[in-house]
Amino acid sequence: MAVNLTPPGPEDLLPVKGVRLGVAQAGIRKSGRKDLLVVALAEGAKVAGVFTRNRFCAAPVQVAKEHLASGRPTRALVVNTGNANAGTGEAGVAHARTSCEEAARLLGCDPRQVLPFSTGVIMEPLPVERIVAALPACVAGLREDSWGHAAEAIMTTDTVPKARSRRAGGATVTGIAKGAGMIRPDMATMLGFVATDAALTQDALERLVADAADHSFNRISVDGDTSTNDSFILIATAAAGRCDRARLRDAVLGVSQGLAQAIVRDGEGATKFITVRVDKGRNEAECRSVAYAIAHSPLVKTAFFASDPNLGRLLAAIGNSRVRGLDVNRVELYLDNVEVARSGGRAPEYREEDGKRVMAKSEIAVRVVLNRGKAATTVWTCDLSHEYVTINAEYRT
Amino acid sequence: MAVNLTPPGPEDLLPVKGVRLGVAQAGIRKSGRKDLLVVALAEGAKVAGVFTRNRFCAAPVQVAKEHLASGRPTRALVVNTGNANAGTGEAGVAHARTSCEEAARLLGCDPRQVLPFSTGVIMEPLPVERIVAALPACVAGLREDSWGHAAEAIMTTDTVPKARSRRAGGATVTGIAKGAGMIRPDMATMLGFVATDAALTQDALERLVADAADHSFNRISVDGDTSTNDSFILIATAAAGRCDRARLRDAVLGVSQGLAQAIVRDGEGATKFITVRVDKGRNEAECRSVAYAIAHSPLVKTAFFASDPNLGRLLAAIGNSRVRGLDVNRVELYLDNVEVARSGGRAPEYREEDGKRVMAKSEIAVRVVLNRGKAATTVWTCDLSHEYVTINAEYRT
Repeated sequence: MAVNLTPPGPEDLLPVKGVRLGVAQAGIRKSGRKDLLVVALAEGAKVAGVFTRNRFCAAPVQVAKEHLASGRPTRALVVNTGNANAGTGEAGVAHARTSCEEAARLLGCDPRQVLPFSTGVIMEPLPVERIVAALPACVAGLREDSWGHAAEAIMTTDTVPKARSRRAGGATVTGIAKGAGMIRPDMATMLGFVATDAALTQDALERLVADAADHSFNRISVDGDTSTNDSFILIATAAAGRCDRARLRDAVLGVSQGLAQAIVRDGEGATKFITVRVDKGRNEAECRSVAYAIAHSPLVKTAFFASDPNLGRLLAAIGNSRVRGLDVNRVELYLDNVEVARSGGRAPEYREEDGKRVMAKSEIAVRVVLNRGKAATTVWTCDLSHEYVTINAEYRT
Repeated sequence: MAVNLTPPGPEDLLPVKGVRLGVAQAGIRKSGRKDLLVVALAEGAKVAGVFTRNRFCAAPVQVAKEHLASGRPTRALVVNTGNANAGTGEAGVAHARTSCEEAARLLGCDPRQVLPFSTGVIMEPLPVERIVAALPACVAGLREDSWGHAAEAIMTTDTVPKARSRRAGGATVTGIAKGAGMIRPDMATMLGFVATDAALTQDALERLVADAADHSFNRISVDGDTSTNDSFILIATAAAGRCDRARLRDAVLGVSQGLAQAIVRDGEGATKFITVRVDKGRNEAECRSVAYAIAHSPLVKTAFFASDPNLGRLLAAIGNSRVRGLDVNRVELYLDNVEVARSGGRAPEYREEDGKRVMAKSEIAVRVVLNRGKAATTVWTCDLSHEYVTINAEYRT
């Protein structure tokens, strides 16, 4: 049911020299599917990440941050789906450490050179013994061309695997992500792993991961919830040497944005992909505030689901954004190119059939012009459907 | 489908001396139902109100505030359902004024002594000529014992009329409200009108209306949206003279809280009534932040709908509240009297069947103990069901 989202073909995904991937069936929650991924990095690879701001930060996130902070070069990522190992207290931390220790033993490195990631149900004990049992199969199957399998192995309620590649001169950028619910600006419930064979300093890598997150995963909203496990990791193996910084940034942002938009397109129950652009604000913060007021409103989202140009809900959402001193009489509102509202009310030329025509589409652009400055921002969201309720009511059954 | 909410019987609603109510069928949006209400106040009555903070404040709200600010004693309220007269620009303001002028003509007062209120669909022109045509029938039918009819005449997606009465010594307090969706803390999509025959100074009345709103309508959330039309009006006719201030406050807060809770019980698609109490915070603001993080989370609300003790979603919501320096290891979480989580994870004694037993109930108390101070707060909310999506997707059809 994803909105205009097809799985990438094998030929779409370019291997990144220095990055090998292996998957296995650990049987963590459901049998008959691959649910464990090891990403092994060649010597010389650098890693940087950004993580959830949820205070109930999951055990693997705590351990991954600690291992990154140890200053030891990361040699592997271990990612399981089916169980988030979140809200699991000290036992959860011990389980995350056990995964790292076992992977380190198999790969011949220090456990602090392994980063753990988990996604799935919260507050259930992680069956770490199943991970330990399946890790040898992951390691035995490590290959540079397994990005597609890796994208499948990290899915939860995702209906389509998410992976993207781009070339940046002599360098390659390839990434995978998962996530479909519990999605909001400050990190979605998502895991994202993007790798390049370009050479970057640690500082440049850390700036780039923050920059990429800010223009991709931090610009999406499915349901306004921030998960306990969100992690976005950028890897640079240096195997392709230095490359043009601007082209590399474009490629990394392009891959990250493609993955972030894929998460929205595959948003739980999504039937529409909605781009919300806010123009001419005083600063980006107020533009974001307006954009998220729209992207988070259940009433706006159900109207999109119904293809109903109930535009008053859009105005009400803008009015709720709490932008100081906002003069609603100066606000213009557009659906695609149709002017819908200005001067505090419906635009005189607006006709219901124009609104209906736009609302019937599966890709809709909402544009709000605040007319009080020069800043702008864009966020991406989806509609709220029956299927969202079904998926989330029945998630554990 | 409302949760444990029955309509008040005629004997439950006590007339308030000095307040007469009349209803009529204006045919504003649907035929065959009463959709217009006039509340006429005896000379000497005082009125105070609190209104929506939405920047796209509806035309009738603008006019009502202006008329209240004129300092002229209010003699009547005119309330229509079916059309919110919001997002209607200057024409909307003119329409609201026309309603007031016509009511004033019929009642023999100044138009500034009439306050207009509208609820219903947004951004559609108000068919003011139908209101003008039906006002004489409202005025002809003015009676002190029509509170029940008045409660019915202001319903939109409400399934049960909402009205409450209380005695406070020699004084009476009776109120009605409407609202079922677009409900959130800083005024729900709701209209609330509460009257007492006690005598109060204007200052005391204004303090009391704010106090009552703060403990009732500002403590509820159905879907996190603030409407353009929210208004809560408190009337004191003085017909019963002075009465004990503390008893009066109790009665006004009791009526207001009963009405506010009725709105949640009748929340669009609600199948559960949920009380969220946050204890031992540093201040009330942070308690509210935690309570609303829970009350606004679609994932928490769908879990309640499914009767699924997916308690990790509650922890994740608490973690999202952005309370500075919150130590999640000190947080305790209870469902009714069942301890669910402590020390950053599931409570050791917690058993899934205990969680399931509580979640299966139609009235559930969530209690979060922050263990960092002495402040506390309570908010009320409902679950998120298929029916919510259906109601809001089909609202205009």
